[in-house]
Amino acid sequence: MPAAEATLIIAASEADANLYYAARFLAPDPFIFLEVAGEKVLLLSDLEIDRGRQQAAVQTVLPFSRYEEEARRAGEATGLAAVAVRLLRERGVSAVQVPANFPLGVADDLRARGVTVRAKPDPFYDARTVKTAEEVAAISHALAATEGAMDVAIGALRAAEMHGGVLTLEGEVLTSERVKRMIAAHLLERDYLAQHTIVAGGDQGCDPHEDGHGPLRADTAIIIDIFPRSIATRYHGDLTRTVVKGEASAALRNQYAAVRAAQEEALVTIRAGVEGPAVHARVCSLFEARGYRTGEVGGRMQGFFHGTGHGLGLEIHEPPRVSKIPATLQAGNVVTVEPGLYYPGVGGVRLEDVVVVTETSCTNLVKYPKLLEI
Amino acid sequence: MPAAEATLIIAASEADANLYYAARFLAPDPFIFLEVAGEKVLLLSDLEIDRGRQQAAVQTVLPFSRYEEEARRAGEATGLAAVAVRLLRERGVSAVQVPANFPLGVADDLRARGVTVRAKPDPFYDARTVKTAEEVAAISHALAATEGAMDVAIGALRAAEMHGGVLTLEGEVLTSERVKRMIAAHLLERDYLAQHTIVAGGDQGCDPHEDGHGPLRADTAIIIDIFPRSIATRYHGDLTRTVVKGEASAALRNQYAAVRAAQEEALVTIRAGVEGPAVHARVCSLFEARGYRTGEVGGRMQGFFHGTGHGLGLEIHEPPRVSKIPATLQAGNVVTVEPGLYYPGVGGVRLEDVVVVTETSCTNLVKYPKLLEI
Repeated sequence: MPAAEATLIIAASEADANLYYAARFLAPDPFIFLEVAGEKVLLLSDLEIDRGRQQAAVQTVLPFSRYEEEARRAGEATGLAAVAVRLLRERGVSAVQVPANFPLGVADDLRARGVTVRAKPDPFYDARTVKTAEEVAAISHALAATEGAMDVAIGALRAAEMHGGVLTLEGEVLTSERVKRMIAAHLLERDYLAQHTIVAGGDQGCDPHEDGHGPLRADTAIIIDIFPRSIATRYHGDLTRTVVKGEASAALRNQYAAVRAAQEEALVTIRAGVEGPAVHARVCSLFEARGYRTGEVGGRMQGFFHGTGHGLGLEIHEPPRVSKIPATLQAGNVVTVEPGLYYPGVGGVRLEDVVVVTETSCTNLVKYPKLLEI
Repeated sequence: MPAAEATLIIAASEADANLYYAARFLAPDPFIFLEVAGEKVLLLSDLEIDRGRQQAAVQTVLPFSRYEEEARRAGEATGLAAVAVRLLRERGVSAVQVPANFPLGVADDLRARGVTVRAKPDPFYDARTVKTAEEVAAISHALAATEGAMDVAIGALRAAEMHGGVLTLEGEVLTSERVKRMIAAHLLERDYLAQHTIVAGGDQGCDPHEDGHGPLRADTAIIIDIFPRSIATRYHGDLTRTVVKGEASAALRNQYAAVRAAQEEALVTIRAGVEGPAVHARVCSLFEARGYRTGEVGGRMQGFFHGTGHGLGLEIHEPPRVSKIPATLQAGNVVTVEPGLYYPGVGGVRLEDVVVVTETSCTNLVKYPKLLEI
C-alpha cells in the first residue's frame, strides 16, 4: 500500500508562520518537520532538542545529529536535504507536500535524491485562515494593547503645543520618530513588539508605507498605523487612525468622511460567502462616486491604490486578502478593513479596524473612536 | 549571443537579507528583483513604487501593475511568476540564478513557463561575508548599544538585594522577564530592536536557547545574551556574558575559567585562511583536556554542543560558521566567538565577543569586561 503523501517543512520557525503553527516551537535556525499518518516528527539539533522536547506540540522529537552521524558513517552526504531523505526513507515516504515558500535549494536536492516534492499554493494550512476562539482571543488581546498605544500617540498629539505650525511637547519638537518611540515603549512594557510603526504627517502620509520622519505639524493629516506582535502568542494587532492637531481643511474633512463611509460600506458587506474582490469593488465604487480618482498623476500614485484589507494572525499579512486577489470570505476569517485616500497637497487618510467574519455579518474587534480633529 | 545568466530574487525584503542587501529597499510583501547586464530592476506594486523610486539602490523601478495589466489584456496568467516571466522575456533572459531560499512554488511556476532556474548555495552574495568598513562600523555601533544594554542588565543584578536566595530590586522580585524588558527598553531608546534576549539563570541557562523566565537567584550562573538589530542600518550586535550575583561554586568558577580559556584559544587562532572547523576543534580539545565531556546524559545534552561562532551582519546567523561546517575564514569576515559549557546542577556558562578577521589575526570589536562574580 503506498504511503499517504506526507507534509514536510524545513525552515526556521521564527521566520515561518506555517512551521510555528504546525509545531508550536520557535527556533532561529532551520529544522526538519515531517507529518505522516497523523504523527508529527521534529528533527532538532543538539542545541534545540531539549527545549523542543519540552515545548513542541508534536509526538516525536529526534536528534538531527544521530541521522547526520549515520549518514557520515555510511559515507553519504550530510546536510538538511540528505538527512531529511534518511528520515523519509525510514518512514516509507517517497512523496511530500511542502509550502509554496519551501526553499528551492533544499527541494532540488530532495528531488535529485528521488523524492517527489509538490509545493501547495497558499494557504498551506487552510485552518490557519479560520481562527479558533483562542486565536481570536489572542488577536483581541493584541488589539487592546494596540489601542492603548494609539491612545499614547494621540494623547501626545493632544497635549502638544503649536509653535509656528510645528508641534512641541514638553518644550521639545514632537517628531514622528519620538511618537513612534513612545508607541514602541508602551507596547514593549506589555510584551508586544512594534516594528515599522507609521506616524506620517502631511504629504509623507500620502505614501502608505512611508513610516514618517521629522517634526509633526499642526493642521495637517497624521496617519498612525500600529501593528505589533505579541511576544507571548506571536499573534498581531493592526490599527490605523488619521488625526489632525488643529484644524483640517474642508478638502481633508470631505476625504475623511469618504474613507469613513467606505469603511462602513465594507463592514456592512463583509460576511461568510462574500468575495473579497466584491468588497474591494464596493469601496472603489464609493470613492469613484464621490469623485475620488485613482491613478498616477505627475509620476506619483494617488487616490486608493492598496487593498481594502488582509488576513491577520501569526503573520501581519496573510490569506485571505480583501482586494483584487480572488478569495471567498469564510466564517472565522480575521481581516483588516482599511480603505484610504491619498492626495499630495491635501494629505493621506486611512482608517483601519479588524473584524471576525461571521455567517451573517462581521464583528468589529476594535472599539477605538474615529475622530479627525483632536 | 546568449544573455548572461541573470539574478532573480522574489521575496519580502523585510524577511530576506539578500534582497535587502541587493536593493537596499525594505518592504513587507514579496516583490521582484532582477539583475542583468549590470542593471538592477525592481517591479513594485502601486503601494510601494513611489517609496521604491526614492529609496532603492537600483537603476530601474517599474510598476508591477503595468505588467500585470498587459498579461490580463493578453488573456495570460497574472501573479508573481507570470509577471516575472514577462519581464525576463522583455530583457532577453531565459535562465536565472536564484538564492537557495527562493520559494519553490514560484520556481516551479517559472520552470513550467520555460525559464531555467538554478539555486545557488549560500552564501548567495559572497561579498556579504566580507564586510566593508561601513558595515563594520554599523556592527560596531550595534555592539556599543548592546554593551550599554548589558550594563543595564548587570547593573540591575549588582543593585539587587538577596532575600532567601531570590533577587529583588526596589522591593520587587527581579525576574528574567523584568531584566529582559529593561534591556529591550534601553535598546529601543537607541533605535535598536532586541528579540529573544536571553536572561537565563541556574539550570535554565543549561539550555542555550532557553530565554529564561521567573525569579533570578543568588549564587547561581545567569547567562545574558543580547543580539539586537539596528532599526536604521538593520545590522546586528551579539554579546553574551555570564555572571553570578553572590558567590559562585568552585565547580562553576572552574567552568568559567575553561570557557574563558577556550574563547582566548579561539581568538588567538582566528585569522584569514584558517578553517572554521579547525578553530572549533581547538575549543573542543581544550574542553576535553580539562575534563569537560560532551554528550547526552540522562536524556539531556550537556558539555559543549553548539558551534563556536557564526557570521554576523544583516542576519543574526549568517555565513561563515565557526563550527563543524566547512568554511575558510577570510579577512573582513565578522564572526562571533562564543564557546560555552552547560552542566545541569552546576550551571551554564557562555562568553561571546565579535571579531573582524584580518590577514594576520582578528580584532575584537567588544570591550565589555568579563567578570563572573558581581
